[in-house]
Amino acid sequence: MKSPDETKIIKTFQNRFGKKSRFQPEDVEVLKIKNAKFVVKSDMLVQSTDVPTGMKLGEIARKSLVSCVSDFACKGIKPIFATIALAIPRGFTQKMINELANGFRKSAEEFGLHIVGGDTNEGKELVIEVSMFGDGNKKMPSRGGAKTGDIIITSGPFGHSSAGLKIVLDGYKAESNTAKRFRNAIFRPNPRLDFGLKAVRYFSSSMDSSDGLAITLNDMSEQSKKKFVITSVPTENNVIKFARQNKMNFEDLVFCGGEEYEIVFTVHPRDLNRVRNLAKKMNVSLYEIGYVSNGKNVVLVDNDGLRVIKRCGWTHLRS
Amino acid sequence: MKSPDETKIIKTFQNRFGKKSRFQPEDVEVLKIKNAKFVVKSDMLVQSTDVPTGMKLGEIARKSLVSCVSDFACKGIKPIFATIALAIPRGFTQKMINELANGFRKSAEEFGLHIVGGDTNEGKELVIEVSMFGDGNKKMPSRGGAKTGDIIITSGPFGHSSAGLKIVLDGYKAESNTAKRFRNAIFRPNPRLDFGLKAVRYFSSSMDSSDGLAITLNDMSEQSKKKFVITSVPTENNVIKFARQNKMNFEDLVFCGGEEYEIVFTVHPRDLNRVRNLAKKMNVSLYEIGYVSNGKNVVLVDNDGLRVIKRCGWTHLRS
Repeated sequence: MKSPDETKIIKTFQNRFGKKSRFQPEDVEVLKIKNAKFVVKSDMLVQSTDVPTGMKLGEIARKSLVSCVSDFACKGIKPIFATIALAIPRGFTQKMINELANGFRKSAEEFGLHIVGGDTNEGKELVIEVSMFGDGNKKMPSRGGAKTGDIIITSGPFGHSSAGLKIVLDGYKAESNTAKRFRNAIFRPNPRLDFGLKAVRYFSSSMDSSDGLAITLNDMSEQSKKKFVITSVPTENNVIKFARQNKMNFEDLVFCGGEEYEIVFTVHPRDLNRVRNLAKKMNVSLYEIGYVSNGKNVVLVDNDGLRVIKRCGWTHLRS
Repeated sequence: MKSPDETKIIKTFQNRFGKKSRFQPEDVEVLKIKNAKFVVKSDMLVQSTDVPTGMKLGEIARKSLVSCVSDFACKGIKPIFATIALAIPRGFTQKMINELANGFRKSAEEFGLHIVGGDTNEGKELVIEVSMFGDGNKKMPSRGGAKTGDIIITSGPFGHSSAGLKIVLDGYKAESNTAKRFRNAIFRPNPRLDFGLKAVRYFSSSMDSSDGLAITLNDMSEQSKKKFVITSVPTENNVIKFARQNKMNFEDLVFCGGEEYEIVFTVHPRDLNRVRNLAKKMNVSLYEIGYVSNGKNVVLVDNDGLRVIKRCGWTHLRS
């Protein structure tokens, strides 16, 4: 019997749990208990599927936090607390536990949050679940708030992490500096927390891009009930060069990757200069990739004409 | 190199994360973000270590919630929301996903809570992490609040789940009704949520017993800085009989098991009758097992004289 993929599994859970229960329709959940409102996000990192060979334990610990931090960043919410649940395989030495614990401590400091508790277990492989918490009283942009005429922007270039995976997993080659840059995109991704916290007031819609750019744009287009017209592909020359050298389509690297941890957002044209200035001050390279229009789908307009960008990118359990 | 066990791992994390970060010193955490206070508990269930053969997927889903519900029960906090993060192995069919989802839905209903979101992943084995949320404005008993002269009580008998594991894992035998009872203690444990919610006002200290009775009593004794004198072993004749038939020490089954999901609590003698009446009305069988005294350690006083009950029970990763 065929195994269902992640999309199908999510659908099953959504159907079972009814309206109050939402499986992954937004980057974070807002929970209200009496008068207390808080933001929560849970994310699980699994060694066999999420950790490429060569990644250090401290980097793994950091990345497990980065996934949640990036979700908070795109909604402009400061992460304050985190809990961690761990499955640790037999054979982990005290040195390895120390590396893991140090990784959590340092990255908690890096992102200005407190790890307040956790649960440790034994398992066949390393699994790290992080639940992250923040203030739920702030107004947040949704994935579905894009308006006709808004500009579509990403907080950084895409394709580095896909190229990095090709290098780390499949042994592809690149020049040493480029290879280092690509590997870093995998091992030490930088969520745009500071930028997100400041710039969020100008976002009409936003989403974390870690499921891949094509999926992100399609989710935002569908939930906004708008057409997303992409006129410029957000990447750097080193990705295009790497693709050419390895006879790959660079657009696949850019659109169908994942784990980029950039913010994809839309802004009203009147706010564009404010967002540009903010990014410049914070040393964030913005990519203005297109605009929102009436209609549906994500379309790419370039020298080859007009193409629809379908969902590609990373879906767990697809065979 | 020897692998550190769970206790050592927890100690490492505690040392790393400093004062604000507490790894497992209490059954639940209270988080305060601005004026919002809420209770959170994270618990991870791992197939290879937490799931005995023969357990159905719906029962596994339910048990992953039970662990958190039981922690809430012992603090008298109503669980309101839960998030779920899953690692699902390749080869899971749609039917299996349905069983899992139905298990979550039914048990969420059973415990009156809403599952509000989650994260699905692929992994080598089934891993379910549950984070549960409740109101943080209610006063809660701590593990360390026992006073000299208080009565020590458990919300049910112990030993059934240890005996159940012997039957399920090691092929031990028992009469059919007894075997069924023991197996049920493993497959469909009943946390004492309704009782906990009502009786909590009388608890001077409390703790969920799922790490095993000996560990629970030792934690409460240490954190309360009191001696816990046990004068009566909380179990039923079927456990004693099972132990005799299989040439085991029944006290090992009672004290050194785990996964009982009973509340261990202390009450001032003036409140004893109120607690008894409440339990009677709610059909909960209380076991008054001893009293709190000045000093330290957990001691058992019975026909054989006086013995110190050390920590035994379940610690992950101990070899």
